[in-house]
Amino acid sequence: MTPTTAVATVCLSGTLDDKLTAAADAGFAGVEIFEPDLVASPLAPAAIRDRCADLGLSIDLYQPFRDLDSTSPDRFAANLGRLERKLEVMRQLGTDTLLVCSSVSPDAVPDPDLLAGQLHTAAGRAADHGIRIAYEALAWGAHVNTYEASWDVVARAGHPALGLCLDSFHILSRGSDPAGIRDIPGEKLLFLQLADAPHLDMDVLQWSRHHRLFPGQGAWDLSAFLTHVLAAGYRGPLSLEVFNDVFRQADPGRTAIDAHRSLLALRDATARRAHVQSAGAVPAVPTGSVPTGVAFAEVAVDAESGPLIARALDGLGFTHTGHHRTKPVQLWTQGEARLLLNTGVTRPGGAISALGLHTADPGASAARAEALLAPVLPRTRGPAEADLAAIAAPDGTEVFFCGTGDDWLADFTPAAEAPDRPGAGVTRVDHIALTQPFDHYDEATLFYRAVLGLTPQPTAEYAAPFGLVRSRAFTDPAERVRIALSVTLLRRGDWAPPVASPQHIAFATDDIVATARAVRGRGAPLLAVPDNYYDDLDARLGPDPALLADLRELGIFYDRDADGAFLHCYTEILGGAVFFELVQRVGRYTGYGAPNAPVRMAAHRTARLALAQAGPDPAIRKLR
Amino acid sequence: MTPTTAVATVCLSGTLDDKLTAAADAGFAGVEIFEPDLVASPLAPAAIRDRCADLGLSIDLYQPFRDLDSTSPDRFAANLGRLERKLEVMRQLGTDTLLVCSSVSPDAVPDPDLLAGQLHTAAGRAADHGIRIAYEALAWGAHVNTYEASWDVVARAGHPALGLCLDSFHILSRGSDPAGIRDIPGEKLLFLQLADAPHLDMDVLQWSRHHRLFPGQGAWDLSAFLTHVLAAGYRGPLSLEVFNDVFRQADPGRTAIDAHRSLLALRDATARRAHVQSAGAVPAVPTGSVPTGVAFAEVAVDAESGPLIARALDGLGFTHTGHHRTKPVQLWTQGEARLLLNTGVTRPGGAISALGLHTADPGASAARAEALLAPVLPRTRGPAEADLAAIAAPDGTEVFFCGTGDDWLADFTPAAEAPDRPGAGVTRVDHIALTQPFDHYDEATLFYRAVLGLTPQPTAEYAAPFGLVRSRAFTDPAERVRIALSVTLLRRGDWAPPVASPQHIAFATDDIVATARAVRGRGAPLLAVPDNYYDDLDARLGPDPALLADLRELGIFYDRDADGAFLHCYTEILGGAVFFELVQRVGRYTGYGAPNAPVRMAAHRTARLALAQAGPDPAIRKLR
Repeated sequence: MTPTTAVATVCLSGTLDDKLTAAADAGFAGVEIFEPDLVASPLAPAAIRDRCADLGLSIDLYQPFRDLDSTSPDRFAANLGRLERKLEVMRQLGTDTLLVCSSVSPDAVPDPDLLAGQLHTAAGRAADHGIRIAYEALAWGAHVNTYEASWDVVARAGHPALGLCLDSFHILSRGSDPAGIRDIPGEKLLFLQLADAPHLDMDVLQWSRHHRLFPGQGAWDLSAFLTHVLAAGYRGPLSLEVFNDVFRQADPGRTAIDAHRSLLALRDATARRAHVQSAGAVPAVPTGSVPTGVAFAEVAVDAESGPLIARALDGLGFTHTGHHRTKPVQLWTQGEARLLLNTGVTRPGGAISALGLHTADPGASAARAEALLAPVLPRTRGPAEADLAAIAAPDGTEVFFCGTGDDWLADFTPAAEAPDRPGAGVTRVDHIALTQPFDHYDEATLFYRAVLGLTPQPTAEYAAPFGLVRSRAFTDPAERVRIALSVTLLRRGDWAPPVASPQHIAFATDDIVATARAVRGRGAPLLAVPDNYYDDLDARLGPDPALLADLRELGIFYDRDADGAFLHCYTEILGGAVFFELVQRVGRYTGYGAPNAPVRMAAHRTARLALAQAGPDPAIRKLR
Repeated sequence: MTPTTAVATVCLSGTLDDKLTAAADAGFAGVEIFEPDLVASPLAPAAIRDRCADLGLSIDLYQPFRDLDSTSPDRFAANLGRLERKLEVMRQLGTDTLLVCSSVSPDAVPDPDLLAGQLHTAAGRAADHGIRIAYEALAWGAHVNTYEASWDVVARAGHPALGLCLDSFHILSRGSDPAGIRDIPGEKLLFLQLADAPHLDMDVLQWSRHHRLFPGQGAWDLSAFLTHVLAAGYRGPLSLEVFNDVFRQADPGRTAIDAHRSLLALRDATARRAHVQSAGAVPAVPTGSVPTGVAFAEVAVDAESGPLIARALDGLGFTHTGHHRTKPVQLWTQGEARLLLNTGVTRPGGAISALGLHTADPGASAARAEALLAPVLPRTRGPAEADLAAIAAPDGTEVFFCGTGDDWLADFTPAAEAPDRPGAGVTRVDHIALTQPFDHYDEATLFYRAVLGLTPQPTAEYAAPFGLVRSRAFTDPAERVRIALSVTLLRRGDWAPPVASPQHIAFATDDIVATARAVRGRGAPLLAVPDNYYDDLDARLGPDPALLADLRELGIFYDRDADGAFLHCYTEILGGAVFFELVQRVGRYTGYGAPNAPVRMAAHRTARLALAQAGPDPAIRKLR
């Protein structure tokens, strides 16, 4: 049996009606009603029931009921009175499971038998209304704060209307071993709440309330966790309960789709794991095909930026080799690197408009993406043109699945003016760096990981001139596709310059000193790097003096770690919001030179200010 | 001797040049140059020296030098080589003090005598260049992480060019007793870095890197701390080192003024403390005069919102009693509450344009505000009009100092049409609630505390329908002036509705049930509160059934704590971005009903949607 999917209304922004609509539109089968959402709603519980029914949503849980037990008999009696009121609300709502969390109150009951007795009494009350109580250990509960402790109490209580709610956050944040869940009888597992999270060294309550993520966006292996829960015999829905500061204020429609994608991917990954282990059910999401290379990158240009970028590419040793048969697209090539300049598209918020990725089975990749709720783009092609399936990434970048060959190149006719001259040593695209919209960074993480099958690399955080930046790359196993996402840690305000977050494409070379010297000779607009940087580099890492002299002369940045070195230089920002990078990787260096990023950003700002002061071009002055 | 003021460049956003300009413009005497700012600057060290000289800034410190000591003699020798490079940079910069922090490296030296020996060697190298080393214990240093431990090592080293840097964050975050600083010889205290912070239960490194605040914005008593340091004989500058995610990306000009205000206020408070203790120097900042009451609140209105608000005030029992002699301002009164409707001003981002506060000595209040860098507003008045000094709060609200009487009322002529009828029981203004611009919340905290002399109340944080909200009130001792500030925890994005953060004015009554019934009878646009709220209230707090029936009938919210109760109801949002509240405080309840705020926000959204669907008014439809 395939478990259904549900989402707690607390995951989404807005009023209850906004949330229910978003959950239904995203395809969830059910919801958990978070009590404060109901309390603030103008709809009576029966009207909420009808609204959910109209939307095709089941109400799988009502939550939370806090601080039920008490060492004071009077207080416990009052709590039972409060419980009765909520059971009545649930009756009107038409839902049969109530979440009761372990108490955090000073009067919480420490004695497990007394606690079990109180839960037994409460379960009896619930049973009178045909309702079950799912008891959950909060990670910061006064006495019950592990799933083992909650199961001990539920087992002692021994009431048929009393079972457990398991929450992956509360269990994994404490470092508990989830394998023990297999020892709990499946019929006692009444509900399952799923949340991922990044590793953070902070108070667990704050971690839980602000930094939860949807499965696949954080650091935990939720597929392993879910495998244990299903192996124990859990048959309820997979439900998300994610408290996250960004999601709380983002468009609930977008967030709900992201949330549902996370569950579909998790369910798929878990089914595949079970399939391997037990030859079970066939997964519902097509397998897809991990990208193996970058076929092309496309930059949206206009009458102003187009010539600037074309001139820069020429300087970088690229050759304008073709025109698209039917679209206003130029093809520029060098080695295996192909760049398209497209005057037929606009790309608000970014300059990189599309990526073409080699995959063994484009149709399978597109089918997987569609099954995981990625927007499939309409195909517009002329007769005899390549039929490329394409989807939209969360930031709007179009991702084309190109097959492993270069059939798509047949759509281009050779450029008449293409000169026959050598390049500057660029071999291929090393990586593509996409700045992300603030509200959709975690969504993008899940997209590149679950939809495209790329592997997330470690997260870097650094202080940049206009605020903190977080960055993370996604790669295929052979590291032929590298997509680096970055985002500011706070949504930017007015102070940041308009081009605070340009995007860029990095080209690989095997000899950056030779390449940089060549492209400088060809007039590429290389970024000037401050002398202070090289003095500091010498003091910090002390590269070979001859190399240091070359780096300083040519404006090449340098980084080194235990595995290798990274040499890289940049062009200035070209027109709107794009620039290029040249990189040479030495040894097994797998990073992106993050320590140098703040210096690069300041240098870009310096160059922009200098241009604005010197240049006659009002279009550039306005970009100051 | 009055200590000078300085700021570390790391406190401010932008490039080094942006930062130096901002620091000089704000009136700082000196700066600490943060090494990454220098490394990313196109200016050579000597050019930075010249730039600072031109700006009138001394360079008081170069920082940080990390991980100096090592258990490996080779590594230590390499570190000394790195040190020599930085001493050369400092020579060109023309600064004489280097910050060396305690090591966090695995090869950090645990043995205090060996560590002292290495510091002695380094101090000798520094002395050769006429430079002193200020050694600082990081709170997370491998072996040296308290000021006591850093002083132990410096004392052992016994080198004249080696002393301590004290940082209030590292000392207070660990709960160390700063009184022990008095036992350190003053000439060994080479530098003092000041930072405040909120109490946060998190990893100290993350707390330090993201959440520091300027003095007076956080939870610590920095005046007591500074008193100890000055008593020990410290004679250097007071310098700010504040790592803060918001300041890192906010306008550095604004931030630098806020920063300098914090030091001027701290220096003043400390001098007053010393004055009391030892009859020492006269403080440099005038004493001011704490506000004792709200004379008036002014709302900016236009042709669309003016009639709506006037109608609502009429419904609330206010009477239009006067017109300003020379300005397009209406006076509305009830009890001691005075409200001005001004069609002559616009107030982007808010509706409340001005506050009039009673103070015993308006001139002194204005002089203190000016000395603490608050913008003093130009006085525009007609002949024989009251001469009110006014300043601008960080959000642009104008604050008028009115004296303790009502002389300013003489500027109003009686409204001819004023009907003679009873009010609805409003006695005075209870509080004024101002939503704050995201980048300036902490600045506002310092403004109301240090400039106006109000006392900050506990901070509340709650989940609202469109994201998390933080709220904090400021009051005079008698609680006649209450100003409640709120801000979203993340800068809002596109999803939040345009009127997500309205401002409001709350009026006190001694009998809210009677007042609410009266104003409902007069047609005030009271906000409808969901029935679900009352069902939950009954289950949670169980108010007396007769009272509950009244609350439910009239849409009155209820909260209760150990000290008393709070009953409050609201109008709908009126036109643009303002609404009114009626409140009754029972017993010693000092809060603002924060648990009810999310329900109020959802109800405002519901009312707005209903209006937009039903009403013919396109101005309201567009505010959906």
